[in-house]
Amino acid sequence: MGNDHIVRSYDEELNRLTGLLARMGGLVEAELAGAIEAVSSRDAELATRTVRSDARVDELEREIGEQVVRVMALRQPVASDLRLVLGSLRIAGDLERSADYAKNVAKRAVALSQLPVLRPVHAIPRMGAVVREMLKDVLDAFAARDVAKAVAVWNRDEELDEMHGSLFRELVTYMMEDPRNITGSTHLLFIAKNIERIGDHATNIAETIHYLVKGVPLAGERPKGDGTSFSTVGAEGAQ
Amino acid sequence: MGNDHIVRSYDEELNRLTGLLARMGGLVEAELAGAIEAVSSRDAELATRTVRSDARVDELEREIGEQVVRVMALRQPVASDLRLVLGSLRIAGDLERSADYAKNVAKRAVALSQLPVLRPVHAIPRMGAVVREMLKDVLDAFAARDVAKAVAVWNRDEELDEMHGSLFRELVTYMMEDPRNITGSTHLLFIAKNIERIGDHATNIAETIHYLVKGVPLAGERPKGDGTSFSTVGAEGAQ
Repeated sequence: MGNDHIVRSYDEELNRLTGLLARMGGLVEAELAGAIEAVSSRDAELATRTVRSDARVDELEREIGEQVVRVMALRQPVASDLRLVLGSLRIAGDLERSADYAKNVAKRAVALSQLPVLRPVHAIPRMGAVVREMLKDVLDAFAARDVAKAVAVWNRDEELDEMHGSLFRELVTYMMEDPRNITGSTHLLFIAKNIERIGDHATNIAETIHYLVKGVPLAGERPKGDGTSFSTVGAEGAQ
Repeated sequence: MGNDHIVRSYDEELNRLTGLLARMGGLVEAELAGAIEAVSSRDAELATRTVRSDARVDELEREIGEQVVRVMALRQPVASDLRLVLGSLRIAGDLERSADYAKNVAKRAVALSQLPVLRPVHAIPRMGAVVREMLKDVLDAFAARDVAKAVAVWNRDEELDEMHGSLFRELVTYMMEDPRNITGSTHLLFIAKNIERIGDHATNIAETIHYLVKGVPLAGERPKGDGTSFSTVGAEGAQ
């Protein structure tokens, strides 16, 4: 970081940290939007651009890590400042992994653009809209230290899990209809799973916001609307 | 943590942190072993026990987080101690996510035990053996601060990615042979992906070890042997 020689006040150091996090959040929102758009519009060029954009997100995560070490070493934060600094590190980690999933969605969009259109793809923009809103809201909640808004995101994950569950079942049926649907459908299975996981990371961020504002963890296991890991849909047909 | 009132030396605090991490590592190794074994032996009871065991891993991650905050607040570590403390937090995160993937493998083992045997399942114990060894070696490398061993794990991930790539292709072909293979094969697709991701987290841990011992990041993009995200295998058949 070229500005390391500048002497900043403690507040400036903390603001720099949250500023880096806000920029990282914006980049991840854009990467996610590009990945979803690339799938629904079968735009391989946008997909490739989106894959490339992920490098900047990784770079920002490193900058945030360096800034955290810097603040720790120079300021030895305690109490709520310490929660903010460690929470920022955690949020940066969740953002980086969300971006990884978005990058994987974009990679699969390239493959899908070379395959025939698959009927179940209609569900991706709908799932994408929900997860984009969750990410946007949780980043707003962090900026405003708005615990209520963070908890709302946390609760919304169930809706996303349910959408994932029904798309999963639709895809299995679709693959059974015609083997020519299988290759593309496996990509859609993973795209849907990646979107669902981005939702999980948005809920992690919501939990971190709750902790860094309130100083106590957000209690209770998150509601899960997705049972696909246990699913044996069509098992009869497989006997 | 019930021992918070005990006054410990700085070294004792750091040892407590690495001790918690070692225990967490052992639990994750056991959870992973149980999940792989449950898939290959079709043992739903072992799978269910393995799923339940994940709660203890999450608990240890919380304890490690609390211990990190405690050391930060009481000792304000700098230089290599600060890298150790922040590195421990990072490793705990990678272990927790690896355990989540193992838990998901175990959940899918329950579903698979209710379905007919699938030929490609033979590949899971082989992939599992590699990832278990990677996890074991990287935990040994952390305990011994053995950078060379950590780098060896980092390099081994390519082998795992290649195994995942060929199993992916085998599964797509297998699903195309007979629609009754599809339901079970989707579980195997995700099981293989989960194992591959545990390998990614083992390489993350290797990078963290390199950083906390050497103070500089492990340079160079990791070799990737897996191109399944771009795969259009069987696309001809899908025209």
